[in-house]
Amino acid sequence: MHIAYKSDPVRGAHWQRWLAQHAPDIQLHIWPDIDDAEQVEVLVAWQPPDDVMATFPNLKALMSVGAGADQFDLSKLPPELPVVRMIEPGLTQGMVEYVTFAVLGLHRDMPRYFQQQREQLWQTHRIYTAGERRVGVMGLGELGQASLKQLVSLGFNCAGWSRTPRDIDGVRCWHGSEQLAEFLAWSDILVCLLPLTDTTRGLLNAELFAQLPSGAALVQVGRGPQLNDDHLLAALASGQLSAAVIDVTDPEPLPAGHPFWHHPAIWLTPHIASQTQSDSAVAALVENLRRYQRGEPMVGVIDRNRGY
Amino acid sequence: MHIAYKSDPVRGAHWQRWLAQHAPDIQLHIWPDIDDAEQVEVLVAWQPPDDVMATFPNLKALMSVGAGADQFDLSKLPPELPVVRMIEPGLTQGMVEYVTFAVLGLHRDMPRYFQQQREQLWQTHRIYTAGERRVGVMGLGELGQASLKQLVSLGFNCAGWSRTPRDIDGVRCWHGSEQLAEFLAWSDILVCLLPLTDTTRGLLNAELFAQLPSGAALVQVGRGPQLNDDHLLAALASGQLSAAVIDVTDPEPLPAGHPFWHHPAIWLTPHIASQTQSDSAVAALVENLRRYQRGEPMVGVIDRNRGY
Repeated sequence: MHIAYKSDPVRGAHWQRWLAQHAPDIQLHIWPDIDDAEQVEVLVAWQPPDDVMATFPNLKALMSVGAGADQFDLSKLPPELPVVRMIEPGLTQGMVEYVTFAVLGLHRDMPRYFQQQREQLWQTHRIYTAGERRVGVMGLGELGQASLKQLVSLGFNCAGWSRTPRDIDGVRCWHGSEQLAEFLAWSDILVCLLPLTDTTRGLLNAELFAQLPSGAALVQVGRGPQLNDDHLLAALASGQLSAAVIDVTDPEPLPAGHPFWHHPAIWLTPHIASQTQSDSAVAALVENLRRYQRGEPMVGVIDRNRGY
Repeated sequence: MHIAYKSDPVRGAHWQRWLAQHAPDIQLHIWPDIDDAEQVEVLVAWQPPDDVMATFPNLKALMSVGAGADQFDLSKLPPELPVVRMIEPGLTQGMVEYVTFAVLGLHRDMPRYFQQQREQLWQTHRIYTAGERRVGVMGLGELGQASLKQLVSLGFNCAGWSRTPRDIDGVRCWHGSEQLAEFLAWSDILVCLLPLTDTTRGLLNAELFAQLPSGAALVQVGRGPQLNDDHLLAALASGQLSAAVIDVTDPEPLPAGHPFWHHPAIWLTPHIASQTQSDSAVAALVENLRRYQRGEPMVGVIDRNRGY
């Protein structure tokens, strides 16, 4: 079968070599060098070309190279075209590492200690045990569940919130908008792993922060447009929030001079929490293509109505 | 039985209340208010009084309130007096959290990203998977083993080194001075959890750093005098080491103006990796006192010859 690839060409070349060795029946063509676009059944891309069906008239599926599909303008894609997110162990592992790092750092007062280092101040503060710390994760898909599993193993008191009901070992689960307030009131450290949808755009705002316990902390690893930057700064200024770890911003890169860069209670990283890993991603891609060839549903097909 | 306590009086008062409720036969007397010193069989202290046997003529054991006993001058204590370190789950949990935080931070290039934040630079770097990262822990007692267990669960490639042979699930174990070079050459991230002894004093020096892979990183959670500060700064300057997370210094507090305070590749915290937790520690203390009462060996008795 023939698939087209439109993203980082270095990874594309790596995938070509990998496929030649492990799945030689799959021909990967790297954009813009597509010999015969009519042969292409699947497009793997971060961004498809403008008129994707005119370019690839026999396209049967569009796959994202990333964990999200919010970069696609779904209104421009034919409704019957399956759009598939990337679910692969490398992406998941990266997010688990980042979330664990961020939650442990906030739990152990590290933003305060790093600020003390800049001030040459040697001063200890009370240590809380992980069991005394309540960590709430919003978004209970692949990444949220894997992160919670690691946090549970560290002894944190864990809860989750999602659109629809979930049942996760050792995790108190809330769901739906009517249970959001209860979940927020419980969360000393709030981790946002929600997809970007019309509902989640701007969700991390003053109204939400006010429902957290006083002095709560935020880990933002969802998508930039979910966070109201000014409201976060105000919540940090008032002490309603004590600190935030932020990996995604709007826009990206964050412009020079933005207050996040120099805020002592904000740790800012350039969208590096999780990246598609070349080897594990191409293996997951092949497994999904085999499902497609067998006529089985692919893993990660998004629901056009909910948007993820 | 009567025991004396000479350390933080707030914790002492908490322990008194706890014992009154859970082990009323154990009378805890808080220094310097000791009614009848001749009754005291066990002293729990960070530092004993100068002539401990003259003060407590019937003393049968000296117990440290901390994980280490290196603060005691063993030459001033009668050789037949058992000296006992504190082994309690709160201390262990704190260290596991700190080591996991530090190793994840170094693994994910966080010192570099935090430096980029100060420079308002949005730039990503290659992500390595945990399985590609080799973490070596020196010191395989209670704290080292518990830390390794968590690191293994995160997928790191883990090894350990100790004075005597150890066997730990999923961890490659080296031992003794003759295997130290092999262990060091293997360790991308080196975690020092060794006790302070004549052998480990000054061990983290230029000679040791030169045996690590180029660009390795250090987590120092042992004791301050193990580290040669100037050698660490030179190793960071040359690039032989890329970063260090340091929780213990010599002296403590670290004096103002010391180069560690402002070094961009050093994260410095004020000896907070692990603290004895009031509730779990008093429970562990009572369990050890019951062993003593039954004539059984206590947990954590130090070997005067090896010094820990």
